[in-house]
Amino acid sequence: MTAFVWPARVYWEDTDAGGVVYYANYLRYIERARGEWLRQHGLSQRALAADPGVLFAVVTLEAHYRRPARLDDLLAISCLPSREGAAGIRFEQQIWVEGQPDEILFDARVHAVCLGATSFKPRRLPPQVSKVLP
Amino acid sequence: MTAFVWPARVYWEDTDAGGVVYYANYLRYIERARGEWLRQHGLSQRALAADPGVLFAVVTLEAHYRRPARLDDLLAISCLPSREGAAGIRFEQQIWVEGQPDEILFDARVHAVCLGATSFKPRRLPPQVSKVLP
Amino acid sequence: MTAFVWPARVYWEDTDAGGVVYYANYLRYIERARGEWLRQHGLSQRALAADPGVLFAVVTLEAHYRRPARLDDLLAISCLPSREGAAGIRFEQQIWVEGQPDEILFDARVHAVCLGATSFKPRRLPPQVSKVLP
Amino acid sequence: MTAFVWPARVYWEDTDAGGVVYYANYLRYIERARGEWLRQHGLSQRALAADPGVLFAVVTLEAHYRRPARLDDLLAISCLPSREGAAGIRFEQQIWVEGQPDEILFDARVHAVCLGATSFKPRRLPPQVSKVLP
Repeated sequence: MTAFVWPARVYWEDTDAGGVVYYANYLRYIERARGEWLRQHGLSQRALAADPGVLFAVVTLEAHYRRPARLDDLLAISCLPSREGAAGIRFEQQIWVEGQPDEILFDARVHAVCLGATSFKPRRLPPQVSKVLP
Repeated sequence: MTAFVWPARVYWEDTDAGGVVYYANYLRYIERARGEWLRQHGLSQRALAADPGVLFAVVTLEAHYRRPARLDDLLAISCLPSREGAAGIRFEQQIWVEGQPDEILFDARVHAVCLGATSFKPRRLPPQVSKVLP
Repeated sequence: MTAFVWPARVYWEDTDAGGVVYYANYLRYIERARGEWLRQHGLSQRALAADPGVLFAVVTLEAHYRRPARLDDLLAISCLPSREGAAGIRFEQQIWVEGQPDEILFDARVHAVCLGATSFKPRRLPPQVSKVLP
Repeated sequence: MTAFVWPARVYWEDTDAGGVVYYANYLRYIERARGEWLRQHGLSQRALAADPGVLFAVVTLEAHYRRPARLDDLLAISCLPSREGAAGIRFEQQIWVEGQPDEILFDARVHAVCLGATSFKPRRLPPQVSKVLP
């Protein structure tokens, strides 16, 4: 099983006064990769929120910060999803500098669940999402 | 007429690799002060979005960056509102380091308009907002 | 042992189109509480970065998102630090709506290490930090 | 003179509880386009900060918010630079949804100046930047 990989450039907005990417911003990068994984399957989260009226919420996150990313770095962000029960998806995610996959900067395990977009109650994964999960 | 003033501490999240507050984040500070100006009048934006169903959108912004703010600085953010037509509010805003009001770091002129929270069409200012404007 | 608690208001900047606080932004809240815990002990991170030339970097994070925070919520963020080896601090952190400590919205376990501010190599905790740890 | 154009996808991180892109985040988009304009000329801001030791700071910003951008929108961000004195660059910037250049969502005029990366004092534009300006 091959992970989906999406690039991101590090801009000033991502960094902090320590000279490196601010620790919360890695969570943005990995969410972009999750969104783009859906998009490559023809799925838009805005469309899913309208019909069938669902969105995805992270319930658990486990992250390791190994090496800092810096301004102008071109990052590669991977996303390896797997089903977790009727409403959940588990994502294994990693970040490295493009071309240097042996030096992982950050990795995370993310557990997201499908919720009603207005009720915020758990909902079974809709079939269009379910069918693209390995 | 005295401006409303609200404090904000500079955290890592606000800074960038230049060692100072990232330029877009001053817009967060001034929005907090606008929100707190409403709150001191007993007005919650979440409540206003539910009833009468309005929110405020910035339409024009003019900003001057004069001196940088840095990590750990305690900032004072001022907000001086005035009515602008039937649907608009104009805010004069300034930022300085607490206790140093003579050294303005940032100032802005913000024009916001009242919109229907779902229609996004201009709406006359609701009376509870209108009555607190000078 | 009582945790240190720091407040934060939820502003527009913190929310996302799901109508709740964006998941990465809880990491900002908990960092503010860690910074304020240091500050109440008279310690400024800007000063520590200058002398003795150290900063703190998060190496591991484990987080649980239990209930969403929303615009205008006044949050309480707790921070319970403990020593972890010669260079590390472990923080237990929780977030709830002010006055509702029985309904935890978010909790996290954060492992941070002391680094040389320019070398980014692990450094023994400086005595001024070490002495305020339980 | 043709403007440089750079794309950006709207992610959850960019939006707010109003359901649209948060007003400060347009400033991130336009900065990315300025950075990519430099990069297409082979210029990295990290490299410029190291040698000749300069960075760029925004001193004035004038922005118009015309229509909201939404989750999943693919945006086009333009950047048209011109010289402003010995140390300054003026950028005309616009944002629209890819393929809909007749419906401008946001436009801005940005005045940035070249500063010493540690002194924060104005510096003449370095020749490698100067020569790529029209």
